[in-house]
Amino acid sequence: MRTYFDCAQCFVRQALDAARLLTDDEAIHEKVLRKVLSESSEMDFYKSPPVMGQRIHRLIRELLGNDDPYRQIKDRSNRLAMKLYPELKKKIEQSSDLLETAVRFAIAGNIIDLGVNSQLDESIIYKTIEDSMKSALFPNTINDFRNAVDQATDILYLGDNAGEIVFDRLLIEQLPYEKVTFVVRGSPVINDATLVDARFAGITDIVEVIDNGSDAPGTILEDCSPAFCARFEKADLIIAKGQGNYESLSDIKKNILFVLMAKCPVIARDIGCDVGSFVLKIGLPGIAEEVNNRKYAETT
Amino acid sequence: MRTYFDCAQCFVRQALDAARLLTDDEAIHEKVLRKVLSESSEMDFYKSPPVMGQRIHRLIRELLGNDDPYRQIKDRSNRLAMKLYPELKKKIEQSSDLLETAVRFAIAGNIIDLGVNSQLDESIIYKTIEDSMKSALFPNTINDFRNAVDQATDILYLGDNAGEIVFDRLLIEQLPYEKVTFVVRGSPVINDATLVDARFAGITDIVEVIDNGSDAPGTILEDCSPAFCARFEKADLIIAKGQGNYESLSDIKKNILFVLMAKCPVIARDIGCDVGSFVLKIGLPGIAEEVNNRKYAETT
Repeated sequence: MRTYFDCAQCFVRQALDAARLLTDDEAIHEKVLRKVLSESSEMDFYKSPPVMGQRIHRLIRELLGNDDPYRQIKDRSNRLAMKLYPELKKKIEQSSDLLETAVRFAIAGNIIDLGVNSQLDESIIYKTIEDSMKSALFPNTINDFRNAVDQATDILYLGDNAGEIVFDRLLIEQLPYEKVTFVVRGSPVINDATLVDARFAGITDIVEVIDNGSDAPGTILEDCSPAFCARFEKADLIIAKGQGNYESLSDIKKNILFVLMAKCPVIARDIGCDVGSFVLKIGLPGIAEEVNNRKYAETT
Repeated sequence: MRTYFDCAQCFVRQALDAARLLTDDEAIHEKVLRKVLSESSEMDFYKSPPVMGQRIHRLIRELLGNDDPYRQIKDRSNRLAMKLYPELKKKIEQSSDLLETAVRFAIAGNIIDLGVNSQLDESIIYKTIEDSMKSALFPNTINDFRNAVDQATDILYLGDNAGEIVFDRLLIEQLPYEKVTFVVRGSPVINDATLVDARFAGITDIVEVIDNGSDAPGTILEDCSPAFCARFEKADLIIAKGQGNYESLSDIKKNILFVLMAKCPVIARDIGCDVGSFVLKIGLPGIAEEVNNRKYAETT
């Protein structure tokens, strides 16, 4: 997805929100703000929004002299999600469609996104979990997801945020997980999950976990390590979680299942859904295309 | 009022909204956006927000090659307000406190602000007029307003937007208008009222109308004409209408009655009220200070 003109005001807001969340020092707020305005004035709108997100958060870490300023916030999200884990696991096991319930919870977990909401209330997470059971999936169905997974032999599951990855674990547990490799960011950016979070969430106990070698809040392939890119190339299905992964991969020709909550109006418009939608979108072409074609053939 | 860090994202949004409202040419949208981001990155936060507003709209006019791109929109607002005028006039005359009703309608008219709302629905205007009869005035009362006006001998009424000035006329008609001079902007900026709007609203038939010599969306004294500044100096009461006049004059030591609807969170915080408040705020010191002191003495 390209960077839309509307994203500019959001970069400014996000940068200021992040600076304020991490320090009371107004001189740092001002430096971050001026720098983001100046860099945004020269941005390449054909690149995806995580390119600017990466710059903003590199700058914030540099000004704070802190490699991982969201560490405590990530720990809190992880602990909260792990506290919810047993109950959610039980709900999945008692449901009539285990995979569908797990997918819905995984999308609900995508609300733990400090790029979008600088303050996240626990009650919003509970509310979103509740909503996830009632909302329609857009635009694809759980059967499209099931078919794509069934046909794949090598699945790369691209994680998104700390806390949220506990919800991803619930979904991985419903997948044929011998086929699955889980991916975290190469190093800290906002509250995105890194290896330490995957360990805390117990994902390392279930599947292989690799990192993508990048500190972008998404998967910018040209910024990822050659090792990751080789795995990405080899995989026959990508499950891409969250807005950052959608923004950076939506134009890549590859079998990708985008699994996210559409929290921003620009992404919602790009997908063609309302803000707040529970999105399960199959990228084209390949297996996903076959799935879509078959579905089309069945209904016509 | 200084420019708060939060104003930056709003400059970006406003500039893009304005460019989109006035042209479908995406190349112009991009130029406006880049320039506003770049200028904002170097802005002096100790100056008031209308300083940047002035720059943004000079740029837009220049890129469009149009000295008054909001002319049609202003005409529409004027016509709509004139259509409402007879009914509002009747409501004022039938009310138990003519001045208070006129002040409330004048504040309601401040909703016609294209700096804040790039699209303005007629239904919002009707709703605001209705609300104006029920909402409390913040923080001063109509008696403070009445006393300040009674004691003044030379009142400068600083207008704000086209359309809105029809509502100002309703208030001027309830003032001792031999004391009143009405002020419009020196030349077009956004939908702010200029001489042509004051004529259309019939204000020129009631009181003397002068312009301030500036194209800022507010009253930046150092940017106004010497003639206006002399009148400003000489006046013993200023009635300053709208957010732009508040932003640019709130720190000026002069008897000023600020009359506005607080439509933005930054201004609401500066005033100490909620967004949507009907504000009647007396500046200090002077007559207004005496009014406040007397009120304090009466209540203690």
